Amino acid sequence: MSASVPAFAIGIDLGGTTIKAALVERGVGIQHEMSHPTEAEEGPPHVIRRIVEMIQPLIERAPNREIAGIGIGAPGTVNWERTAVIYPPNLPGWGIVDLRQELQKALGRSLPVFVENDANLAGLGSAHYGAGRPFDSFIMVTLGTGVGGAIIYRNRIFRGTTGGAGEIGHMSIDYEGPLDRYGIAGSIEAYIGQRFLSRYARYRLLTHRDSLVHQMAGADLRNITPRILYEAARAGDVLAREVLAWAGHKLGCVLASAVNLLDIHKIVVGGGVSAAGEFILEPARRALRRYVIPALRDRVEVVRETLGNEAGMLGAAQLVFQLLEQPREDLEA
Amino acid sequence: MSASVPAFAIGIDLGGTTIKAALVERGVGIQHEMSHPTEAEEGPPHVIRRIVEMIQPLIERAPNREIAGIGIGAPGTVNWERTAVIYPPNLPGWGIVDLRQELQKALGRSLPVFVENDANLAGLGSAHYGAGRPFDSFIMVTLGTGVGGAIIYRNRIFRGTTGGAGEIGHMSIDYEGPLDRYGIAGSIEAYIGQRFLSRYARYRLLTHRDSLVHQMAGADLRNITPRILYEAARAGDVLAREVLAWAGHKLGCVLASAVNLLDIHKIVVGGGVSAAGEFILEPARRALRRYVIPALRDRVEVVRETLGNEAGMLGAAQLVFQLLEQPREDLEA
Repeated sequence: MSASVPAFAIGIDLGGTTIKAALVERGVGIQHEMSHPTEAEEGPPHVIRRIVEMIQPLIERAPNREIAGIGIGAPGTVNWERTAVIYPPNLPGWGIVDLRQELQKALGRSLPVFVENDANLAGLGSAHYGAGRPFDSFIMVTLGTGVGGAIIYRNRIFRGTTGGAGEIGHMSIDYEGPLDRYGIAGSIEAYIGQRFLSRYARYRLLTHRDSLVHQMAGADLRNITPRILYEAARAGDVLAREVLAWAGHKLGCVLASAVNLLDIHKIVVGGGVSAAGEFILEPARRALRRYVIPALRDRVEVVRETLGNEAGMLGAAQLVFQLLEQPREDLEA
Repeated sequence: MSASVPAFAIGIDLGGTTIKAALVERGVGIQHEMSHPTEAEEGPPHVIRRIVEMIQPLIERAPNREIAGIGIGAPGTVNWERTAVIYPPNLPGWGIVDLRQELQKALGRSLPVFVENDANLAGLGSAHYGAGRPFDSFIMVTLGTGVGGAIIYRNRIFRGTTGGAGEIGHMSIDYEGPLDRYGIAGSIEAYIGQRFLSRYARYRLLTHRDSLVHQMAGADLRNITPRILYEAARAGDVLAREVLAWAGHKLGCVLASAVNLLDIHKIVVGGGVSAAGEFILEPARRALRRYVIPALRDRVEVVRETLGNEAGMLGAAQLVFQLLEQPREDLEA
């Protein structure tokens, strides 16, 4: 079967504000790319039309207009069969929408279509096109508004029993710690999710009037971003370095728990907060070594993802290649 | 191939003080069982002879003296190929010992032999013969001197990248908590490993002179066992109930982190401390619901393993059946 799978596929990132789509060549990368406002409030049929409008010209650009299929990443839960999104959190008013069926209908052909959680696809994209390439298995953690995660095991997504594996963001590192948005005490998101980290920085700044962060963030400290903290840290600001090291330590602690449980020793860190780079990652490595079992202390490795948003599209296309070429139990219902 | 695999196998539990061996009928259970002192200090060749002396009469009892093979459980690390133990912690002075090769040599025949970590085999035994039977996937946690664990995913052992997955005992629930034997802060073992739990009970008893535990444990409070706490709790002792509920809450917290990461919602609890039964498990369930992501709150389920030591032998035999009948990637080097 492998020989007959075309070397091109479409990868789509279905975001709350923007749809991104790319024509991906297997093992090479993105060949063409476009984006459109999602206009999710117009409802699924409208969005499906939008997607079709983007897919058509991308297919035109594939050799012989042949593509293996379409992969779609979306936040939240997808069904086990990877055909539908289920109440996607970023698409208000959507319920369960069978994107496979809708797309096939709109395209008038039975192209393979697979839907998968976007964090998982970012992991798969990293595994095949990004910083995860050297590793057969790794834990992907995405530091953004929330803290997302994915488990890549032997170059495939570890899905768990309902497709929801990888929720590193809600693992607790302090059973009496601060609450995250789900009310879970001490989850890593409650420390280093962007909003929480900014708040922590604001508190620390109250007693550090001389910090560069004050100048850089301006009058409203709610403007503090990881980028500002990083810039201040790079300029030598002690407080910014402390805040990022504090975050890195927490990150290392939760990663150690994941490493101990999974016996997967490689970590790829992506997302906005990872812009703070080594100021977070080096403390994370130190903590990681401290909290993993001794046998793993010399094996753990933390690297930063250099792919940006395109990781999701690359992963979406990769999922198509993978499922068509090596179907396995994770394709089953 | 499946049809030709005999329905009987030998399961061995290679403990530090005792070797246990059983003839197991597939899907039925233990048919015959025996045990012998390990005498590990006499060295591997002696222990191999011991094992052979136990295996021979068990094979005699199999129909037509036909067995599928031999499974061996041992603590600590085994190699990925499942042929050798690697510095087993309970067999002092042993280095890397290729049990497959040694056993085949001693038996004078090339019977299949598989070696696996004992906690993983207890999980596999539970999956096929114990409380784990209703579940395709579950997390096994064994509460004893330490806190062991295993991940059963689709009725097989999830091994991680080096065969060491499932170290729940060293996952941290408080990054500034007490240290376990590896120096990991706030690991669950540092709360509910038997020694730590007993110590916590002793501290609490200092200010609870009227507790039944004082009478039951006698003059030396170091004698406190989970069994004593359970008996006192059952007799209505408030302090014993508080101590066990405290332990259960911690257990639920770490299990929630594992559930969130793995998207595996069923938990089987075994081992000595689980003798404290519902006094631990009910608080664990409450905490678990509190610390898992909302989508999983109604799905999580915690049950107690009713198999005792035989879980390991059953799992060892099951591993033989499984690897011969459905060889898959986890059989590969």
